[in-house]
Amino acid sequence: MKLTFSPASPFARKVRIAAIELGLIDQIELTTITVAPGQANAEYEKINPLKKLPVLILDSGDVILDSYVIAEYLDELAGGGRLIPASGPLKWKVKTEHSLLQGMLDSMLLCRYENAMRPESLRWKVWSDDHWNRVWSGMARFDSDAAMLSRPLDIAQIALTCVLGYADFRFADRPWRKAFPNLDAFHQKMLERSSVKISLPPPA
Amino acid sequence: MKLTFSPASPFARKVRIAAIELGLIDQIELTTITVAPGQANAEYEKINPLKKLPVLILDSGDVILDSYVIAEYLDELAGGGRLIPASGPLKWKVKTEHSLLQGMLDSMLLCRYENAMRPESLRWKVWSDDHWNRVWSGMARFDSDAAMLSRPLDIAQIALTCVLGYADFRFADRPWRKAFPNLDAFHQKMLERSSVKISLPPPA
Repeated sequence: MKLTFSPASPFARKVRIAAIELGLIDQIELTTITVAPGQANAEYEKINPLKKLPVLILDSGDVILDSYVIAEYLDELAGGGRLIPASGPLKWKVKTEHSLLQGMLDSMLLCRYENAMRPESLRWKVWSDDHWNRVWSGMARFDSDAAMLSRPLDIAQIALTCVLGYADFRFADRPWRKAFPNLDAFHQKMLERSSVKISLPPPA
Repeated sequence: MKLTFSPASPFARKVRIAAIELGLIDQIELTTITVAPGQANAEYEKINPLKKLPVLILDSGDVILDSYVIAEYLDELAGGGRLIPASGPLKWKVKTEHSLLQGMLDSMLLCRYENAMRPESLRWKVWSDDHWNRVWSGMARFDSDAAMLSRPLDIAQIALTCVLGYADFRFADRPWRKAFPNLDAFHQKMLERSSVKISLPPPA
């Protein structure tokens, strides 16, 4: 299998961590792809019209997206119920948390595009403030959820790790550690995993 | 159960159609909520920090998001494997198609925000063109997928219906019917379902 990948993509990082934790990383070739808003990539658009990372390309040629569906696919390949609970109330809790974290990552990328890629004269602070508020409110919610932060490893915890790593990478001036000490402790603990450490984004 | 809802939201429409098709709509109260970028909604942000529609609020008070996870939840409630194949290659195909369609809807909303809500002097055509291209490329892909367009009803077909309905609602000047005659025929056929007809967006 091939995974389209960039070391800067928090979505690709999530899948990479999941694949390592599931013992599947040796079956996956990471293929580095460059995508950016406003820049065409005709070859990759044939694979994914959304021009987003990551997608998983199976040996059959079938393509799987998005990052959550890839994680589900890998989880099933590893026996099922490993990173996504197979049943019960925790199943819907983890999925819901993951959707919230996915939306937080989307908002972070929108902030990044607004403040780093859009021409300076066209930036709209109302927009980026709104999206950053969503990220911050989401962080506040997880900071106060001791049960979530201390469960056995699951896909929501991996996504939260990628949110925090991306905050460090692209928003180093936002003091999330000071505001959310429980998230700080969680992140420290997650960094003890080699899957998390090896996949840290490069220096910004 | 309560579903936060707006008649203009294609994501809420998708869940509504799914609930009708699964025979569950009578158990769901639609609660109309107004959300927009740059406009606070403190009460709703407590329910969903992303300030997005829809979420499903269970009688227990538990909240389920996003629209795809809600569709999964309702599908399971209705016995499972009804709108999302429970196993086999079609499972990953439908999930992947749904993710692509979800991304197309995200891009359509980004175009809408750019061209209708952002102050005119701050608009960046490169951005909205890029996102519209993703929508158009996605439509082209589905237009050429006769098997997808003629399968028994599933969540990807419902999402495609919502993409096309949202194109009519917010992008009436884009000639998708002329460019994609197979999508036109598919949309006509879907409109024979009362779930699809009753949930059409209001006049723009």
